[in-house]
Amino acid sequence: MSDSNPQVVDWRSQTFRILDDGFVRVVDVMGDDASVVQAARISYGSGTKKLHEDRGLIRYLMRHRHSTPFEMCEIKLHVRVPMDCWRQWIRHRTANVNEYSTRYSEAIDAIQTTGPTEWRTQSISNRQGSDVNLALELGERLSDRESQLHQLSRDIYRERLDAGVAREQARKDLPLATYTEAYWKIDLHNLLHFLLLRMDAHAQHEIRSYADVIGRQIVSSWVPLTWEAFEDYRLNAVTFSRCELRLLTFLNQNALSQAIAEAIEMGWLDESGKTLRVNRERVEFESKLERIGVKVPWIQYKDS
Amino acid sequence: MSDSNPQVVDWRSQTFRILDDGFVRVVDVMGDDASVVQAARISYGSGTKKLHEDRGLIRYLMRHRHSTPFEMCEIKLHVRVPMDCWRQWIRHRTANVNEYSTRYSEAIDAIQTTGPTEWRTQSISNRQGSDVNLALELGERLSDRESQLHQLSRDIYRERLDAGVAREQARKDLPLATYTEAYWKIDLHNLLHFLLLRMDAHAQHEIRSYADVIGRQIVSSWVPLTWEAFEDYRLNAVTFSRCELRLLTFLNQNALSQAIAEAIEMGWLDESGKTLRVNRERVEFESKLERIGVKVPWIQYKDS
Amino acid sequence: MSDSNPQVVDWRSQTFRILDDGFVRVVDVMGDDASVVQAARISYGSGTKKLHEDRGLIRYLMRHRHSTPFEMCEIKLHVRVPMDCWRQWIRHRTANVNEYSTRYSEAIDAIQTTGPTEWRTQSISNRQGSDVNLALELGERLSDRESQLHQLSRDIYRERLDAGVAREQARKDLPLATYTEAYWKIDLHNLLHFLLLRMDAHAQHEIRSYADVIGRQIVSSWVPLTWEAFEDYRLNAVTFSRCELRLLTFLNQNALSQAIAEAIEMGWLDESGKTLRVNRERVEFESKLERIGVKVPWIQYKDS
Amino acid sequence: MSDSNPQVVDWRSQTFRILDDGFVRVVDVMGDDASVVQAARISYGSGTKKLHEDRGLIRYLMRHRHSTPFEMCEIKLHVRVPMDCWRQWIRHRTANVNEYSTRYSEAIDAIQTTGPTEWRTQSISNRQGSDVNLALELGERLSDRESQLHQLSRDIYRERLDAGVAREQARKDLPLATYTEAYWKIDLHNLLHFLLLRMDAHAQHEIRSYADVIGRQIVSSWVPLTWEAFEDYRLNAVTFSRCELRLLTFLNQNALSQAIAEAIEMGWLDESGKTLRVNRERVEFESKLERIGVKVPWIQYKDS
Repeated sequence: MSDSNPQVVDWRSQTFRILDDGFVRVVDVMGDDASVVQAARISYGSGTKKLHEDRGLIRYLMRHRHSTPFEMCEIKLHVRVPMDCWRQWIRHRTANVNEYSTRYSEAIDAIQTTGPTEWRTQSISNRQGSDVNLALELGERLSDRESQLHQLSRDIYRERLDAGVAREQARKDLPLATYTEAYWKIDLHNLLHFLLLRMDAHAQHEIRSYADVIGRQIVSSWVPLTWEAFEDYRLNAVTFSRCELRLLTFLNQNALSQAIAEAIEMGWLDESGKTLRVNRERVEFESKLERIGVKVPWIQYKDS
Repeated sequence: MSDSNPQVVDWRSQTFRILDDGFVRVVDVMGDDASVVQAARISYGSGTKKLHEDRGLIRYLMRHRHSTPFEMCEIKLHVRVPMDCWRQWIRHRTANVNEYSTRYSEAIDAIQTTGPTEWRTQSISNRQGSDVNLALELGERLSDRESQLHQLSRDIYRERLDAGVAREQARKDLPLATYTEAYWKIDLHNLLHFLLLRMDAHAQHEIRSYADVIGRQIVSSWVPLTWEAFEDYRLNAVTFSRCELRLLTFLNQNALSQAIAEAIEMGWLDESGKTLRVNRERVEFESKLERIGVKVPWIQYKDS
Repeated sequence: MSDSNPQVVDWRSQTFRILDDGFVRVVDVMGDDASVVQAARISYGSGTKKLHEDRGLIRYLMRHRHSTPFEMCEIKLHVRVPMDCWRQWIRHRTANVNEYSTRYSEAIDAIQTTGPTEWRTQSISNRQGSDVNLALELGERLSDRESQLHQLSRDIYRERLDAGVAREQARKDLPLATYTEAYWKIDLHNLLHFLLLRMDAHAQHEIRSYADVIGRQIVSSWVPLTWEAFEDYRLNAVTFSRCELRLLTFLNQNALSQAIAEAIEMGWLDESGKTLRVNRERVEFESKLERIGVKVPWIQYKDS
Repeated sequence: MSDSNPQVVDWRSQTFRILDDGFVRVVDVMGDDASVVQAARISYGSGTKKLHEDRGLIRYLMRHRHSTPFEMCEIKLHVRVPMDCWRQWIRHRTANVNEYSTRYSEAIDAIQTTGPTEWRTQSISNRQGSDVNLALELGERLSDRESQLHQLSRDIYRERLDAGVAREQARKDLPLATYTEAYWKIDLHNLLHFLLLRMDAHAQHEIRSYADVIGRQIVSSWVPLTWEAFEDYRLNAVTFSRCELRLLTFLNQNALSQAIAEAIEMGWLDESGKTLRVNRERVEFESKLERIGVKVPWIQYKDS
């Protein structure tokens, strides 16, 4: 790999700071866009090398979910993450992991703190998410209390160690937001799957902060053709279900009454076809229609 | 499967209590010892059925690490575990998991507590372990402080929720010892691997408590022939390395001076061959010799 | 599970015949639609049980790629497949497998044969596929020659065994189309992924025959709600890439010249915007447009 | 990594020839012994760096089955292997694979041939293995017939392609010994597991030829400290089961009658304790005793 491009050097040597005290840095990589192409071509035999350009081949592979050539690239990251966030991260089972051990060593003395303006409200529309930030005054009180709790848990952790308690037991009441570190090694295919889920708007703010950096700062520089294809065919793609395709067809054919009948059938409208039902799938479909410039046919209807 | 045996009913329906507020219970199983045999026999063809009895075949498979037939059995458990312990558990990547979500729901209001007599000292010989328990008076003080910390973290979690903070953020400072629940589904081969590591004397007390119950109460009843073979060929087996085999041969041949020379070569004794070096592998070998009734040749030597 | 429905009994006990001498049959299952729901609900806590009906919850999970609850179901199949086909099958790495061993036993004396009308021509449009069938007369000659080869390979296999050659070596020249058997155990999530790829029009006829039966005969009966959701949100869904969404938006807004400019930019039309380029992605987009009732804007253009 | 050592260059650039027309060559590696150490140390924290030397740490990890640090190294090989052998190879599910496709391209025109002196007899003692070679004259006849079969299958494959049969169907009767090629990428831990199984005396000659080269030529040069530890603690180690440990203890204590009683209990001797039973585990134990210089106590007994 040519290192003459100063930006290429950057993503390999830079420590990307995330949250108040976390980071991601690249330890090592194996392969790049050319390795994806090389692996794909073994399926085509030597004669086909001229038929496809690299970019076209990578885009073809991504579009048709031929995932194995992307597995031929590997990346190893060193990350520092709140344990709370790491609990989500580690659910991706295809990676290789070595995590800092608080059985062998004292816990890292760093806990993710929340500034007065960073407290988020429970999402109304989404049971698992968060919406806007809380008022400053309330935030200040919450941050004070957080600081109090962090201090007490630090004191008690120290008291236990001083009293001779085993590290494996002393750590038991550390806050979930305590930072941990790990080496995390994963192939490019599985990394893209991780990014698809964790860069998503529904992912929690904390892990999304890491995923955004890994995707937009690191992967996009490491394998630019793969990243471009990923953005086009996965990250910014939209899938229409069988029912949505049927509805869309009616709309494109100006068969409005059939479209309404379909929406009633789906439970999106009540039986009169004049009132909206509370229905998450309907709302998702409406935003897809907006995305492709189609007017929502029941836009003027009232909620039930 | 015959359910006439009352004990068979037991392991399937009982909720096994573990730690102060944890549990394990069987949700479902697929297959049993007979399924292991059935799968193994597809490799042998129909004619061989008479040649092996089931027990002998299972023991043969276990002894020779033919692991795939054991993958034909599957078990699904419902477990309640401190998150601290779950962090170790989840490192076994071959299982299927659905964990209680503290993004969707309020955290389970239970934190593992430590009685005054349950505080363990840091192990001297083993950097990751714990040894004996601390004195009662000291333990009482530590338990008091633990209780104080649990109360504050509970109060603050409640304050956050009451203030409208999103659940995904409110949970950030829960103590690691907060209980979580999960469905955990794994095949028998990978379960045995989990048990081999987590029933080991070096495993942390908490996870060992779960592994012991899963192994000795559940698996031993579910697949008794497989469990017996596992105990004989894995759990209670001892492996001698190439160097240890060489040493053992010298000892068996009464070639003491060659044994001592080998131990010097290994760095277990100093160059005079008269003084022990601090060496963990030597200590491990000594306990293996004791296990098979062989006298440690340098037993009278002094430590360096 | 209620067994009163005679059709339910059927999929569990029937041996489904496939190709000239292959089959699929269910050996065992763990869980069903209710297990998916049960696992999903642990994330929601007890209070939410009333909010979702089972069907709605399963559809939500499928739509949003919440895959872990589907991993809570497991199925074990006994299959008989030509080795050639098995070579594709086994590429799915998440399954547990015990295959008939031709080291331990003599090879199964069955080779997939091809009737005179079953010879397929190389696909023109698709480098890896096949199109229509060859003429009968030609097919008859090919079937004769196939039969000749099968006879010779059988004779030689027998000669080797009679001469005392080890089974592991005698088998070396068996035709790839020789049947093998296996127990194949997989969780529902990974099975659906297998079916998505292998029921696809681009999958080879042979493996598609197996996938169709497993999907439409077995899975659809075993977990009907999951199967319905899979058909709606995966099997019959269509994904539009970022570029396709842009184009679709222009078309919906009657911005034809911008649509053409975009298609030129994509390399689908030449620079004049009047001539089609050979481009597989364009052809794919055209068939998507047809699917949703939108006229292809360059339909009257001529090929380059 | 320093490339000044000419031998280091060798294993990375050489194509190792195997069988009559196969090969293995290294395409790329990530990490080396130092990466294993680096990953292990994240568990120990910075302060412990002085306590262990690299070699000692690697040996400790290998001895105690701390496998995750070895997963931090990755290797990518390009291999050419008979499909028959590849069918065994691909059973190791943790690797990433891109195989030459005979749907996209014509099959590689090479089939593993067997010289007159290379035909092996079926093993008597081991149902899956092979023993000595067959007589030359018989071998010559078998090689002639093999050649005849290869010629016919080549002719027919060509006829099919010439007749316009799709490649995916034309290949169906290729002999299993037809060569295929693949890129095969795997982490060091899983590679060592592959080698442990496939370098074993019970592995089939063909795959053992590949495993020997990968282990002794490539891995031993790539990660010499890891390889040494692997040889000492895995490849050349011997495991004694609980029953064998009990027997060994009796022998070491000169408690011969108890040893005999144990062997009767195990079913290794008949009830008189004077006659050997046909028992594979007994034979295995005898060879372990020989390995450590202990006389087999029933050596003078006669077979049943």
